[in-house]
Amino acid sequence: MDLKFKNLTTTESFKELVSFSTPDIKNILSAERVSKCNIKTGAGLDYNYSAKPVDEKLLKIFQQLADEQQVVKKYKEILRGSIMNPGEKRMVLHHYTRGVHNIDYKEEVTDKINLYKEQIERFSDFAEKVHSGKIKGSKGAKFDTAVQVGIGGSDLGPRALYLALKGFMQSEGRKPLINCEFISNVDPDDASDVISRINPETTLFIVVSKSGTTQETLTNTALVKNLIKTKSQSIDIAKHMIAVTGKGSPMENPLEFFNSFYIDDFIGGRYSSTSAVGGVILSLAFGSDIFKKFLEGAHANDKIAMEQDILKNPPLLDALISVYDRNILKTTTEAILPYSQALSRFPAHLQQLIMESNGKSVNLKGEAINYETSPVIFGEPGTNGQHSFYQMLHQGTDIVPLKFIGFKESQQLCDVDFEGSSCQEKLNANLVAQITAFAIGQQDSNPNKNFPGGRTSDILIGKRLTPETVGSLLAHFENRTVFQGFLWNINSFDQEGVQLGKKLAGKVLSGNQENPVLDAYSALLK
Amino acid sequence: MDLKFKNLTTTESFKELVSFSTPDIKNILSAERVSKCNIKTGAGLDYNYSAKPVDEKLLKIFQQLADEQQVVKKYKEILRGSIMNPGEKRMVLHHYTRGVHNIDYKEEVTDKINLYKEQIERFSDFAEKVHSGKIKGSKGAKFDTAVQVGIGGSDLGPRALYLALKGFMQSEGRKPLINCEFISNVDPDDASDVISRINPETTLFIVVSKSGTTQETLTNTALVKNLIKTKSQSIDIAKHMIAVTGKGSPMENPLEFFNSFYIDDFIGGRYSSTSAVGGVILSLAFGSDIFKKFLEGAHANDKIAMEQDILKNPPLLDALISVYDRNILKTTTEAILPYSQALSRFPAHLQQLIMESNGKSVNLKGEAINYETSPVIFGEPGTNGQHSFYQMLHQGTDIVPLKFIGFKESQQLCDVDFEGSSCQEKLNANLVAQITAFAIGQQDSNPNKNFPGGRTSDILIGKRLTPETVGSLLAHFENRTVFQGFLWNINSFDQEGVQLGKKLAGKVLSGNQENPVLDAYSALLK
Repeated sequence: MDLKFKNLTTTESFKELVSFSTPDIKNILSAERVSKCNIKTGAGLDYNYSAKPVDEKLLKIFQQLADEQQVVKKYKEILRGSIMNPGEKRMVLHHYTRGVHNIDYKEEVTDKINLYKEQIERFSDFAEKVHSGKIKGSKGAKFDTAVQVGIGGSDLGPRALYLALKGFMQSEGRKPLINCEFISNVDPDDASDVISRINPETTLFIVVSKSGTTQETLTNTALVKNLIKTKSQSIDIAKHMIAVTGKGSPMENPLEFFNSFYIDDFIGGRYSSTSAVGGVILSLAFGSDIFKKFLEGAHANDKIAMEQDILKNPPLLDALISVYDRNILKTTTEAILPYSQALSRFPAHLQQLIMESNGKSVNLKGEAINYETSPVIFGEPGTNGQHSFYQMLHQGTDIVPLKFIGFKESQQLCDVDFEGSSCQEKLNANLVAQITAFAIGQQDSNPNKNFPGGRTSDILIGKRLTPETVGSLLAHFENRTVFQGFLWNINSFDQEGVQLGKKLAGKVLSGNQENPVLDAYSALLK
Repeated sequence: MDLKFKNLTTTESFKELVSFSTPDIKNILSAERVSKCNIKTGAGLDYNYSAKPVDEKLLKIFQQLADEQQVVKKYKEILRGSIMNPGEKRMVLHHYTRGVHNIDYKEEVTDKINLYKEQIERFSDFAEKVHSGKIKGSKGAKFDTAVQVGIGGSDLGPRALYLALKGFMQSEGRKPLINCEFISNVDPDDASDVISRINPETTLFIVVSKSGTTQETLTNTALVKNLIKTKSQSIDIAKHMIAVTGKGSPMENPLEFFNSFYIDDFIGGRYSSTSAVGGVILSLAFGSDIFKKFLEGAHANDKIAMEQDILKNPPLLDALISVYDRNILKTTTEAILPYSQALSRFPAHLQQLIMESNGKSVNLKGEAINYETSPVIFGEPGTNGQHSFYQMLHQGTDIVPLKFIGFKESQQLCDVDFEGSSCQEKLNANLVAQITAFAIGQQDSNPNKNFPGGRTSDILIGKRLTPETVGSLLAHFENRTVFQGFLWNINSFDQEGVQLGKKLAGKVLSGNQENPVLDAYSALLK
């Protein structure tokens, strides 16, 4: 492996970026630009960057920077199975949960590919048996509900994807095959709330923890068992629980879980939605045919991400634009604004994906860096956001880069005409109006009615939110996140920043902490 | 009214803030400080600012600034009924939806107080009749479900509060009296999804729009009617629909809505949760006794907000601290981190409350200002956030001010011991561990395992999330937001920034826009 690792600010290209004079979007945005700055990012999804201040000259520097930081070369090293998570000395293999790449990968990867493939077959078969009633609850009832118990990557991605695809089923004239719920928070109100609405006899619990030691998840499993005993005394709980975990983890215990599906250390939590972590519950919910189409969409983006040319590689171009926003234009946040209700929790997933991957101050060699990395990610669906925080986005004192997501058709294809247009037409009229209003603004002699404009955005556009589109959308952001990490020269696959809190919480619980401040705060909450 | 309006940066106190040398929280945080920096903010809620870098000297400047900007005096002018929303030439009267103040308010306010009181009695009576079955659906069935159709302030606050209180009912051994759903997004998938899970014959729709002209809400009402006709042909829809609107608005139509409850122009959308906008649905959901306790909690905070002494006025101290973070320490974001699953959507409500109120670049005289106003607000419940974006908060390159919310007891009082501690103990151990870890950090010679600390936080602490606590919590943030506005010398009650998008969307829909850029974007989404 002949890779070079340079801090962003020490690259030649970055120096060019610093001296580059950013065009004013108000001057360059044109109808021609809107149709020209539009490239394909897999499974029918387009990436349009016309409302970002990116001209030919800047694109040229971007390409140089991508080449200088060896972004695509490093991505291919991920696919080859090199140790690209050096902090934890691990390969990074989530791409293989959704397809095999035509690349000379290492021997070890072959074994892993086989493991992942085997899991897909195993949980597809399992889901089919649950659907047909071959696998039933301990009292003979068919399962109609699945509850995923997990936190972080075992919760946010799968939950966002479940919500993203539920409506798609409705449009196909079928409901989800299995209704799904999620328990994540160690706050006992979370489990209590979910258990109050389910029938234990028809419910399957999927407990998800790679290490098999996640405190919140084990605690919630205990709480769930306790609540269920109260609700349905004669139930055999082990016949209602399956595990998604690492082979040989403490959770791989047939006395507690009647079946187990496997992930391994080469699939990071926030990148695990396409593995058994998302696969078991999504296959139960929608059928493995739908889940496999979703994987195909993700794989399509993974292939595009191998393109050297940034104009053929939207996750890479998107990453470059975001780094330009962050490190040259000095923005500190980024809004994710899907004009699709089904994507209501997608921003929460991206919050983890991006902020946990790239919220770092240390480069790959373990040296402190002196430039900005992950911004704060936030967002809500449009049009809701328009009636909430858009005031600040339009007229506030800070510039917030905006990332829109839109679809030509509604997901459920169920609509009505009202005052001359359909809901979907109104939704999209609002979307295009916002892109334009943010970019161009509107002069008014009354400062209170003045819109400065210059608030730039890009957008991912699909025909409709199908399993393939959802897969491509997910992978676009995963690959973009990894590419940002390469540009910033940081490790996007570890998360040392979560350790200290864990350690101190353990000390509080064990009572032997010898820290008077911790004691004092604990006293306030007793 | 003898008020002075100064830009923040032109005050004498601000100059003192600029030259003040901020203490390092690592040096000043002590057990003594934790118990000392703790003040009451109404209905049993405490505000603790021990992990903010605020010492006696800074408190003194804060008090000066509050006095110089006449914050409490201006607040009392709000209560007196002066025109404190000058852009729209309106009084600001939401405080009177939850109680009367011992202050010499103007004649006009008396009428309004009577209107608000009358509405509470009317919707309490209405809710009681729905619960007893005196008011039924058109086919004779009792209502068991209410669906609120509204957007922005007619959605976010009521929805967050419904979720905040639902579990409280469960702990009282009763379920919510009426199950509630919300439709807000003009994306037709939103209504379609909600309608697919309800039985129209037992469902009451509450359509909420002050002006009676909100495009999304009227469109969704039409879509709902259409979907219901398909589902249950013989239903008399007007017998299932009530309105919350302004008197005389186009929505006050008995042919479409069999009952109407009123708000007026002096209750801003984002401040309207304690009016009929939140009151109708929350009284239906939980009973008017619960709703009235919630109002009492809010009123308790409103009274505290009249205190001149910042150490007796937590919303004011909180506002001062946030302005110090924003304008002196130059932070750009703020995380709202409730350690309570029931508050899962509370950050989304605060996002609107704060960013729409204070995301402005113009002072009260309509002049451009040159200092920062509202930061970006985001947040998710702990412990979920810990497994998501906390990595960036601990080790990212930007400092994010953190606002925690915690409770001694779980809301539903349903818990289990696991490995020596209950879920609630684990939740709170994590909370106190995080406060400490963020503030103090931990030195490590390995930069990847180093926690710089200095990441300051404050916290609101209650015994348990009851109706009174929820009310006080809501009002704390409302009053804090208004106080921030006074400090920044901006109008926290208008929202001119939402107009341009609306106007352009109207042009797109009418087809006569003559804007090639809008045309080009529209074409992408067709």
